[in-house]
Amino acid sequence: MKRNKVPKITLVGAGPGDPELITIKGYKALSSADVILYDALVNETLLRDFQDKKLIFVGKRKGITPLPQREINQLMVKKAMEFGHVVRLKGGDPFVFGRGFEEVQYAAAFSIPVEVVPGISSAISGPAFGGIPVTHRGFSTSFTVITATCSEGVPNGNLKKLPSTEGTIVVLMGLGCLEKIAELFQAEGKQNQPFAVVSNASLPNQKVVVGTANTIVHRVREANVKAPAIIVIGEVVKLKNSVILEEKSFVLN
Amino acid sequence: MKRNKVPKITLVGAGPGDPELITIKGYKALSSADVILYDALVNETLLRDFQDKKLIFVGKRKGITPLPQREINQLMVKKAMEFGHVVRLKGGDPFVFGRGFEEVQYAAAFSIPVEVVPGISSAISGPAFGGIPVTHRGFSTSFTVITATCSEGVPNGNLKKLPSTEGTIVVLMGLGCLEKIAELFQAEGKQNQPFAVVSNASLPNQKVVVGTANTIVHRVREANVKAPAIIVIGEVVKLKNSVILEEKSFVLN
Repeated sequence: MKRNKVPKITLVGAGPGDPELITIKGYKALSSADVILYDALVNETLLRDFQDKKLIFVGKRKGITPLPQREINQLMVKKAMEFGHVVRLKGGDPFVFGRGFEEVQYAAAFSIPVEVVPGISSAISGPAFGGIPVTHRGFSTSFTVITATCSEGVPNGNLKKLPSTEGTIVVLMGLGCLEKIAELFQAEGKQNQPFAVVSNASLPNQKVVVGTANTIVHRVREANVKAPAIIVIGEVVKLKNSVILEEKSFVLN
Repeated sequence: MKRNKVPKITLVGAGPGDPELITIKGYKALSSADVILYDALVNETLLRDFQDKKLIFVGKRKGITPLPQREINQLMVKKAMEFGHVVRLKGGDPFVFGRGFEEVQYAAAFSIPVEVVPGISSAISGPAFGGIPVTHRGFSTSFTVITATCSEGVPNGNLKKLPSTEGTIVVLMGLGCLEKIAELFQAEGKQNQPFAVVSNASLPNQKVVVGTANTIVHRVREANVKAPAIIVIGEVVKLKNSVILEEKSFVLN
């Protein structure tokens, strides 16, 4: 039984899926945890090393009403007061659409010290595992990361500006909006805008589909791609599989 | 002496500075390396565990002409052919302004298998270590990452659009452009646009300075902030130190 019940909370990013993509710091935080509150996108293989901890699933699962954020916050603080060190383990990075800062604020309201250990975000690593760099000389000097929601098929305000956004665009949690997003580009005469979709990035069941505003929806349907997935939009998509083309362009001294 | 000289290259992101912010996968790649080619932003503490490897510094250092990218590429391939597994260890993430994909292309031209292990980018973790989330409900639903160069004090084209960019903006390697960027916001009537600068994120000598378009240059100078540093622009900057203000707004059941 743990005697030290000084409450402490560590928000840890678990990365995109591959259990080895957590940081050493994050892994150490898990090792010293008394309680681990984890999300649906956290790979359960990672948790196998921590079966001696109190493991509490707080994510979304089919057929089960997920805990509202408020209740996750409350549970986190309650467990910290009860057991000591709580690790709040989140897929990707805690501050990239992860509501992590809301948890920081909540814990701080109870004067509980909070540490944040960043994680590998699928915003950058998702494209990378699909063979696409978010930046590359001559292709992209910036990238924009956004989420998409399409209530009743209507894209949110942010999305409408995407066709005029420069640089690479990465859309997280937006697979359900893919058709609408593609239509926005088509409507601006950008039918050939390069699109890629990467699902389950870094995992054995990863899928990568490449196309254009005109073709991506059909191809994604054909490949039966499911969430979780990221959408990459921009010239960098053309770099996928480009490496063969470069074969004769360099000389080794 | 190594007998297995089958060439292989792994690009590994070392993260923002704290040596424990490398991923487990990245650390394992280093453990199995024959040669490690590392950059200036890689923490040398991390390399202490790998003193049995051939360590080659290829970064920029004061007073020494840095190797051109082409020569780094050549060295990487040459060492892989000579010694086997080369880890190209880069600060942050290899594909975030790291020229990592150029190295992938170069290696692929010699049919050398390349693996990429993402790293924690300072684009997201830099603000986080400064107490600022890149996204937060009601504050920011997107973020844009950009680099800044100011040749002879003139900001590059991308920068001119920053004042009209929605969501959080993170500028990497842009400290030398801070004054110009602040002026761009001032010229658009956005004198009070929140700005923050985080230098040496995650390291013991980290500094965080918060201000507005009007005040940030003076404050950064006053605090004697030096590169490497990231600039964060946007409403999320106001969240820094906001947690105390939230103290009474939550109730634990």
